[in-house]
Amino acid sequence: MTTKVAILGFGTVGQGVYQILQNKQKQLTHLTGESVQLCGVLVQDKAKERILPESVLVTDQFDEILAQEPDVIFEAIVGEQPSFSYLTTAIDRRIHVITANKVMFAKHGTHLLDKAANRVGMGYEATTASGTPIIGTITKLLQVNSVTKIEAILNGTSNFILTSMQNEGKSLKTALKEAQDQGFAEADPTNDIEGYDAFYKLMILSQLIYKKQPNWGNVPCEGISNVTAEDLAFAKTNGQKIRHIAAIEEKNGELYAGIKPKALSPAHGLHSVDGVDNAIHIISDLAGPLTLRGPGAGKLSTASAMVEDFVHILQSYPVKLLQY
Amino acid sequence: MTTKVAILGFGTVGQGVYQILQNKQKQLTHLTGESVQLCGVLVQDKAKERILPESVLVTDQFDEILAQEPDVIFEAIVGEQPSFSYLTTAIDRRIHVITANKVMFAKHGTHLLDKAANRVGMGYEATTASGTPIIGTITKLLQVNSVTKIEAILNGTSNFILTSMQNEGKSLKTALKEAQDQGFAEADPTNDIEGYDAFYKLMILSQLIYKKQPNWGNVPCEGISNVTAEDLAFAKTNGQKIRHIAAIEEKNGELYAGIKPKALSPAHGLHSVDGVDNAIHIISDLAGPLTLRGPGAGKLSTASAMVEDFVHILQSYPVKLLQY
Repeated sequence: MTTKVAILGFGTVGQGVYQILQNKQKQLTHLTGESVQLCGVLVQDKAKERILPESVLVTDQFDEILAQEPDVIFEAIVGEQPSFSYLTTAIDRRIHVITANKVMFAKHGTHLLDKAANRVGMGYEATTASGTPIIGTITKLLQVNSVTKIEAILNGTSNFILTSMQNEGKSLKTALKEAQDQGFAEADPTNDIEGYDAFYKLMILSQLIYKKQPNWGNVPCEGISNVTAEDLAFAKTNGQKIRHIAAIEEKNGELYAGIKPKALSPAHGLHSVDGVDNAIHIISDLAGPLTLRGPGAGKLSTASAMVEDFVHILQSYPVKLLQY
Repeated sequence: MTTKVAILGFGTVGQGVYQILQNKQKQLTHLTGESVQLCGVLVQDKAKERILPESVLVTDQFDEILAQEPDVIFEAIVGEQPSFSYLTTAIDRRIHVITANKVMFAKHGTHLLDKAANRVGMGYEATTASGTPIIGTITKLLQVNSVTKIEAILNGTSNFILTSMQNEGKSLKTALKEAQDQGFAEADPTNDIEGYDAFYKLMILSQLIYKKQPNWGNVPCEGISNVTAEDLAFAKTNGQKIRHIAAIEEKNGELYAGIKPKALSPAHGLHSVDGVDNAIHIISDLAGPLTLRGPGAGKLSTASAMVEDFVHILQSYPVKLLQY
């Protein structure tokens, strides 16, 4: 049998998905019993040259993608809309969806998961911490465990800047410029350095763990833009590092969440996390404190999370949902 | 429907399994659609007093356990035999098996997995790194990824001793005594400090990742018994820590494995792992370098791994295999 897939958005992540689907054809067939056929790619600018087989439809019209009757859609677009509309329509048409879109999913994840429940698979590992499998660890490996608290470094750019400021005495401006030159900070770095990126990811984790989110307006969200060289030097004299920490826990049925720079002592599980890595410290009732650390961004790393979701969906659901 | 389970061995881990099954009844039913009923416990000394309901058979005869027709067996006995015989028989009788027995599984895991394939579920998360879900991460979350190399701290006792020697200047003898007093080193610590415990776990990971094991005789295995205060002091002056590292990788189809104390620089992903924790650094082709860190031992932590396996098996297989 053949599974027809479409990719929405052909930037870095979308291209990564394509590359993995191409390079891992045999293994995907071995794992899922299906051969995978790319039937369409949704782009913004059709005229731009792309290395894609002629058989693959390249279009800027979502309707034309739907007309190909894909079984699975990979969504790697940035921003809330039109992604949310596209995925809503896809689920209604009984197409499995896999997304890397954190802003959209933080806002509409609950709605989409409800809609998808018992109908189609919904993969969102790539929305949080890229290839570091935090979503899968909680949903698949800690099902019996109750997670009571998480603390996490969820923004690789902030962590890179703090590491570089503290270890090499650089200014925030210089460190940010370096992050931009190395390609992992955006031209407009507001989302990263003001903490919004970590905020969205924390809300996704909240939904995952507690099946609800705190009122967004009540979550203190502080980025790293006010961290000074003096703060870092002072932390260093105490053997501490300043890290940008997103934390959430439930006490007596209430959620307490916050995002802020925090001085960590060497005994803290996230103290050693340097550079662009992400890391999540998970406190649960049975397994004990676990820490997952890995890349927080990257073409193949993020695409890897999406293709792992794809395999899991094909192993869990009948593929040809339209026929049901 | 009711799932009948039996526990073989009622030491620390077996009791932990019982405790979780009792305390998480509702959640287990929610996750699996089945209610769980403990039908038998295999012990060495029947006369010893135990807090178990009267309805539960307590016996020193495996045949009497089988006569209860359990659907799933939790095996928490120490040593190669009689565990291997018990699990072989159980699989033949189409009983799902979940083991925490690393020595037995390192030697006979391949045989048991082959025997179990397409017939019954076989859970072995608890054999390696206790509640740290390394087995599940590789089997369930990194299916598309090819793992090329792992480096790991797999023996919590050795890591505790090295930490305590380096941080507090203690002798190996004193540090070992402390570990024994705190209950995580055995009265006979040979398996831990000579590296055998880490060796067995590495062989299990080898089987998992590469579907084969190196010839045991060709794997250099060095414990921490020869690490001196001078070695640690010297490492410290270089900003390094000595850690007991088990490593394996495949190059050109050949496996290269080894277990030995190694000086790690701060940039190494395992440098920060102190105390009784275990940690595994996984290099794969897509997701990027991942590190998992968590408890390497503990009653609830190890039992947690077994009950998580239990849920996964019930979600993946028809429970009543005997009826097929």
